[in-house]
Amino acid sequence: MDERAALALLEDRLEPVGDDAAVVDDLVMTTDMLHEKTDFPAGTTRYTAGWRSVGASLSDVAAMGARAKAAVAAYAAPTFDADELEAYVRGARDVCTAVGGEYVGGDLDTHEEFTVATTAVGETSDPVFRSGAQPGDVVCVTGTLGRSAAALERFETGDLERANHLFRFEPRVRAGRRLAPEATAMMDSSDGLARSLHQLAAASACGFAIDREPIPVDPALEAVMETAPAIDDETFGNAVLERAVTFGEDFELVCTMPENAVSRVRASLECSLSIVGRVLEADAGITLDGEELPDQGYTHGE
Amino acid sequence: MDERAALALLEDRLEPVGDDAAVVDDLVMTTDMLHEKTDFPAGTTRYTAGWRSVGASLSDVAAMGARAKAAVAAYAAPTFDADELEAYVRGARDVCTAVGGEYVGGDLDTHEEFTVATTAVGETSDPVFRSGAQPGDVVCVTGTLGRSAAALERFETGDLERANHLFRFEPRVRAGRRLAPEATAMMDSSDGLARSLHQLAAASACGFAIDREPIPVDPALEAVMETAPAIDDETFGNAVLERAVTFGEDFELVCTMPENAVSRVRASLECSLSIVGRVLEADAGITLDGEELPDQGYTHGE
Repeated sequence: MDERAALALLEDRLEPVGDDAAVVDDLVMTTDMLHEKTDFPAGTTRYTAGWRSVGASLSDVAAMGARAKAAVAAYAAPTFDADELEAYVRGARDVCTAVGGEYVGGDLDTHEEFTVATTAVGETSDPVFRSGAQPGDVVCVTGTLGRSAAALERFETGDLERANHLFRFEPRVRAGRRLAPEATAMMDSSDGLARSLHQLAAASACGFAIDREPIPVDPALEAVMETAPAIDDETFGNAVLERAVTFGEDFELVCTMPENAVSRVRASLECSLSIVGRVLEADAGITLDGEELPDQGYTHGE
Repeated sequence: MDERAALALLEDRLEPVGDDAAVVDDLVMTTDMLHEKTDFPAGTTRYTAGWRSVGASLSDVAAMGARAKAAVAAYAAPTFDADELEAYVRGARDVCTAVGGEYVGGDLDTHEEFTVATTAVGETSDPVFRSGAQPGDVVCVTGTLGRSAAALERFETGDLERANHLFRFEPRVRAGRRLAPEATAMMDSSDGLARSLHQLAAASACGFAIDREPIPVDPALEAVMETAPAIDDETFGNAVLERAVTFGEDFELVCTMPENAVSRVRASLECSLSIVGRVLEADAGITLDGEELPDQGYTHGE
């Protein structure tokens, strides 16, 4: 059983699971566990690990359109190294500060493999779910896609400073707050745009027609892929786009809204907002430039 | 560096750490990570693991005198086994229901060792800290001590049903709510009564004179230790008491309050409340029947 099958099993039994965060009264709450081997490539600093792990939970808060209130982390490492721990806490605190939340500490434990579990709590009286996309709405993406894929390449080539920089993303909490009044459905792109669209389609019972051209590919991904063996322009463009669309771990927001709301929202955003397609009826399926876009992306446990 | 040194390091840099839960406005928030090898003896069912792990976080909510609002868990296992996962979720949900909170799901991950991280959020406008104990107050303990120590013995002898039963404790959320208006300081006994007293003493800058006789030893611990090789009564009594006082993992509440508040509070409690000693000035130290009570108990990373 892979993670999605397991989550589906849980959803059968436990209503609130299935959105980026659970909703309890006016709170949203989300938790994530990350491990050194699968989530932190060699060369990831503990500062980056603190930033990124807590950031991943804050991104789920953002995806509900909520204010960031507080975050905690449970930190387990083979030994308690003061410098590492302090760097982790600094990263965790800095990402909270960046989005107006408070890092309030956590638990410490010994474990063979560096493992962290982060939890964030947000507040909103009007959360945005994955389930409200309406045929006719446009599909929008904040920021750019492919930044984490680019980071991975930099880790592999040993360009650790740039890799760590790319790995620290700003959770879209402010954007989420501004999108919330207009968005009909929203989630984050942590499993990749392709998978996010499939999840939105399942929750909203709709289809999507996505256009290749406006997909906001991060220049850092183009730059890192240019160093790959020479290939022709079209093949290169396809390869970059595929990575940007399927790699995930980018923590941008993917949302739907009426087209006439876009310019109003854009004016209040600090990041870009790209219209990448349209919401269709469910029987239209999910297409990219008219071809079926498979449900491909990152799934734990496969 | 052991866990306490590491936590002390964090406290230097991060104000809210140091109580059983962090306080953010009217919320309290706490997180714990547990691992199969160190926290779940062979024979622990996944139902018990779900109950106990989420219960440990709810106990921290109780220790702040807060209402239980919601809990989440990040669950990592070598493979996603549907029955195990479902049993874990049932246990997690049942312990939340038992204390009036809501289990709202979590994260799933693969990991070599079964590992869970649980987070609970509670609500209170008037949290109880570790720092308010006043000389002249009495020291009280809810319920009984030694239940988890007894469970461990049962796991070792293969009496798994009783062991699992003993391992599932009811977090003292209701008791915490009723103690809160009277308690001057409070925490849970998860590291053992001895260590809890040292932590309360450090936070409140006080001493304690504890009496051996009223310490509420759980009958299950006496029963399990009676099967040990025959020893005389006094040695037996000492051995049982030492286990009850130092073993920890019991998740009872340890609190201080004016003596005249005790009968009032007792009348509203569903569990027992034992007066086990008195708060003294700091220079009196921490004694058990007049002898120094060492800071002995369970510390991760030692």
